[in-house]
Order: sequence, then structure tokens, then C-alpha cells
Amino acid sequence: MSSYIVGVDVGGTFIKTAIVSWDKRVIGKSSCPTHAQEGPQAVMDAMEGGVRDLVAQNKISMSEVMAVGIGAPGPMNWKTGVVYSPPNLAGWKDVPLGTEMQKRLNVPCFIDNDANAACYGEFWLGAGQGAENMAVLTLGTGVGGGLIVFGLLLRGEDGTAAELGHLKVQRDGRLCGCGSRGCLEGYASVTGMVRTAIEALESGRSSLIHDLCQGDHARITGKMIFEAAQEEDEVALWTFEETATWLGLGIASIINFQNPEKIVLCGGMIDAGEMLFEPVRRVAKANAFQVPAERCKIVPAGLGADSGVLGAAGCALARYEAAN
Amino acid sequence: MSSYIVGVDVGGTFIKTAIVSWDKRVIGKSSCPTHAQEGPQAVMDAMEGGVRDLVAQNKISMSEVMAVGIGAPGPMNWKTGVVYSPPNLAGWKDVPLGTEMQKRLNVPCFIDNDANAACYGEFWLGAGQGAENMAVLTLGTGVGGGLIVFGLLLRGEDGTAAELGHLKVQRDGRLCGCGSRGCLEGYASVTGMVRTAIEALESGRSSLIHDLCQGDHARITGKMIFEAAQEEDEVALWTFEETATWLGLGIASIINFQNPEKIVLCGGMIDAGEMLFEPVRRVAKANAFQVPAERCKIVPAGLGADSGVLGAAGCALARYEAAN
Repeated sequence: MSSYIVGVDVGGTFIKTAIVSWDKRVIGKSSCPTHAQEGPQAVMDAMEGGVRDLVAQNKISMSEVMAVGIGAPGPMNWKTGVVYSPPNLAGWKDVPLGTEMQKRLNVPCFIDNDANAACYGEFWLGAGQGAENMAVLTLGTGVGGGLIVFGLLLRGEDGTAAELGHLKVQRDGRLCGCGSRGCLEGYASVTGMVRTAIEALESGRSSLIHDLCQGDHARITGKMIFEAAQEEDEVALWTFEETATWLGLGIASIINFQNPEKIVLCGGMIDAGEMLFEPVRRVAKANAFQVPAERCKIVPAGLGADSGVLGAAGCALARYEAAN
Repeated sequence: MSSYIVGVDVGGTFIKTAIVSWDKRVIGKSSCPTHAQEGPQAVMDAMEGGVRDLVAQNKISMSEVMAVGIGAPGPMNWKTGVVYSPPNLAGWKDVPLGTEMQKRLNVPCFIDNDANAACYGEFWLGAGQGAENMAVLTLGTGVGGGLIVFGLLLRGEDGTAAELGHLKVQRDGRLCGCGSRGCLEGYASVTGMVRTAIEALESGRSSLIHDLCQGDHARITGKMIFEAAQEEDEVALWTFEETATWLGLGIASIINFQNPEKIVLCGGMIDAGEMLFEPVRRVAKANAFQVPAERCKIVPAGLGADSGVLGAAGCALARYEAAN
């Protein structure tokens, strides 16, 4: 009997794999390097190996796998499973990831945008369980988004919905990789936070961050800013407050847009805990309408770093069931 | 047989009423003054009179009316039909509009936010017909919004979704009536456009607008700015470009959020035609992702000033059918 779903999360550095049973139990998980620099075939080799190894380790036969769900970086066509040219997968150009993986594994394969997969994961098994109307923000190099409305993932007409990192929060603001200016991503991503810190340092403010990066601002990471903030470093604390203010304003827009039950934050940045969540909640509440602001719980991911890989499995299960 | 639905749109100045048949034919329309300054009972008297008169004029018996839909200004509870305290209906405080009108008319009455009703009207009978994923912006004193996703009106958990006029487009921007700053409404409403013009005039720029308002800036209207723009007045043209730029940025956010098929613009401002639509489309396209920007048609209301009153009837029909 086909009782299992396998989820795969293709990141720029690691490929994660997980097996979930039809009754939502996580059976096993693994991770391997992406080898992104070796091009699409090598990445697909790694994906195939990851799935086959994990299935074998858990004494499951491939015939017991009803579907494989793959969360991959966009832009992509989620229906056809073609991945266009994601910035962090070098050499990828219109790769038919869905059909290729289906050929390799001989199991129905479903492709979804990684942030949508993370959203579905939190909805299905994580902090969003029970919510029919919610949003997810993934705070990393960029800011990804996912939306559940009426209990369904909102993919939009072309599968490009929920690009919440590209809400415009400042006219003529920071130039964004998408070609626009003033996108939320430019301020509320880890990259945006680092840029905010660098701007403060370059205006001549002294800071522990300067020591941590050994004077080389190009080496500043989110973690360094967090470490400095824990030491009460003024620039680091200000950088967190700034980043959280932008994020809170973006979240206020999402609350006014969607009147959701929950907004779930994912990604490494949430390890900062209350240093991030307290000002985010405060700014969001001050800038959204009162009733929906009080309704909306702003919470950290319930699945930690596994929202994407488990959500990819969940998306595949939902799509498999809808098709069968 | 109950074959008709009556829609009512309660505005600050006029109450509109319309009869629609079950097969979407508009049977009759009327309009009467709201008498808002006389308080809730007078307004409900006018609403009741409007419905009864229009039904009688069209030789329909009240027993043939299956439901009455009322679009009213928020904030409100659309489920219980209680209208809280709308700024343009003086003296209203927690008025149980739904049950009161149902008692008066002896027909099921359904209350909805007026911008949601306008959205539903355009979806049901107007420019949005056939779209399952769309947004409506009503450009008036404020900026209202409505959203259709998966072919359903998205009201949100508390009925406050789609407050698209309160997307944040500028940190620390213009103070908004909602208590926040930098809301789209502050720039893209008629009021916002007038304010933009006044700021230009007060910076010393000479303009035909100054003559049209006879030097009294408090008297400037959107119509005056439009008239001056038609005469190629520089400040007026700049004001339109500014207003359209803000609106285009807001629309780019909506496109990135929702990946909709259509965005329908309603309200008196759309009479400006291409002077508004050309820059709005240009700015939206330049700032949203390419695929969804090309997908999304930005179009004027198909029902003119009747989106709200017809949509109120449509909302009532949908809710009546869902309940029966």
C-alpha cells in the first residue's frame, strides 16, 4: 500500500529530505549537500540519492511512496514543474524538474515554490495548524511568503502569489533584486538587516560588530549582529529595532490585507526570539486596524528549519489527493 | 415566487436602491438623500422607503423579494449586521442595521462593508466577470478595497480583510485617519490627491488650480485638478502623475501579494481616464514581478457608480443561497 509521502527541499547549500506517513507522522529526515555549482544534473542526482537512501534506511519500498513533493526556489511553473532560473541554483534554465524526477523515481512528483511549501508545512503540521487564514514569512537572504486562505494555499493565477517580500514599504527606497525599489525584503531580510548595520557603521558609529567582523564589513552576518545585540551593543540593538520596524510595517499591511488568524515567521532570524518578536508585534499592532491586529497572532515557526521539507510533502499529498 | 433581490447602498449623501432578478437582470434603480445628519432612525426610514417605493414602482410584491443586501460604511460586523461608528454617518453607534431592516421589511437582510459590496458587484456583473482572483479599489474620500480569491469574497476572520487603502507605502509618511502613517489612502484617495496639489501650491508654484478655487485652497476638489490638467496646467499634471505613482506602487504590492487576473478601479477618480490609468499601469508594471504584472489587467469599473448597490444585492443572494 502506498502510505508515505516524501518531501524534498532544495536549497542553495543543502537538500533536505523527509518521509511523512499518510496520518502525518514524520518517519525520517536527512540532509545532503546540494552541489549547486555542478549544475542541474548533479543536483538531481543528489535529490534522487537523498530520497532513495532515506527510503531504504527506513525500510520502506519505493512502491509504498504515493508521491514526492519538491520545494524549490522560484521562479517556476508549479503546474508543469518547470524551474526557470533561480538566482541561487547556477546554470538552471527552464529545467523540467517535475518530469525529470518523476522519470528517475517512478513516483508522481509535484513541484512547489519553497516559501509556499514552508507555508503549507506550518499550516499542515506546524504553528498554523487549525488556521484557515494565515500568512508565512521566511526571513533569510531574501523574504519569502506564503498564504493560506479558505484553508487553501493561494498560489494565484501564475503561481506567483504571496511574494510578500516584495510589498512596497518605501517609495524610492533600497534597490531590490526584483528591479523595484523599497521592497520589504530590502529591509527585513538578513541581507537587509546587515545592510542597515553597515550603513550605521559607515556613518561612523562605533560598535562591537566592527570587531566581530575584524573591520571587514563585507563579512558581517546576522549572527554577528545578534551576538553584539546580546552584549547590549547600541548599533546592534538599533539595527534590530530598525529591522523589526520595517517587518512590523509589512506585517501591518498583511493584517489589513487579509485579516488572518496567524502570521508565522520562519528562517534563521527568528532565533533572535523576543529581540525580534517584541518590536515586530508592537509595530504591527500600532499600524494595523485594532480588531484584526488583536486577532492576529504573530508566532515563530513550529517546525523550525523543517517547514519547507515537510510542507513539500504536504503539498504533494494535497495535490495527489486532488488529482486522484 | 421569490425571484428578486434588492440591493441598498448607504452612502454619506445618497442611498441607492436596485432590484436584480435571480438571473442577474437589473430591473430598476433609484436614489434618495441619506439625511445622515438626522441620525440612524431617519436613515433607516429613508432606506425602507427607498426599497418599498422601488419595489412598488416595478409592480413587484415584497413577497417576491427573497433577500435584501445592504452595503454600508464600516467598521461593522457583517455576520451580526451591527454597524459600529462609521465616520460619515453621524450619531451611529452599534446600530443593529441588519435586524432593524429585517423587522421593517420582513425579508432576510444581509449587511456588508460597502467596498466589499462594490468588489462583489464588479465580480458578479461588472468588469471582473469570469475572474476567480481579483481586487477592487474604490477611490473616493478614502481608498476602499475588496478581494475575490478562489471565486469567493475574502472577508477575513473579523470581516476586516481587504483594507487595501491601509497598505503602508511610506514609513513615517502622511498621518492617516486610521492612526497609522504612510497608508496608500493618504496619497491615492481624492483627499490625498487634493493634499498633494495643496502642498505643491503652498510651495509657491503657480497654477490654474489657484484660480479655480478662487485662492481658497480648502475649496480645491479632485474635479478642479482634473479640469486644470486638461488645460495642461503643470501642477495639475504633476499632481496626477504623483497620485498615479502612489496608486501604481500600491497596485504593484497587490499584484505581488495575490497574483490576480484583474484589478478593478472604482469611484469618481476613474473619470480622469487615461490621465490616471496610463501612469498607474506603467508604475504597477515597473514595480511588480513581470509574469503577474503582465497577467493582471488594471481596468475601470464596469458598473460605473452602481458597483456597490448591485454588489450588495449579489452578496445577499450568495449569502441567502449559502444559508438555504
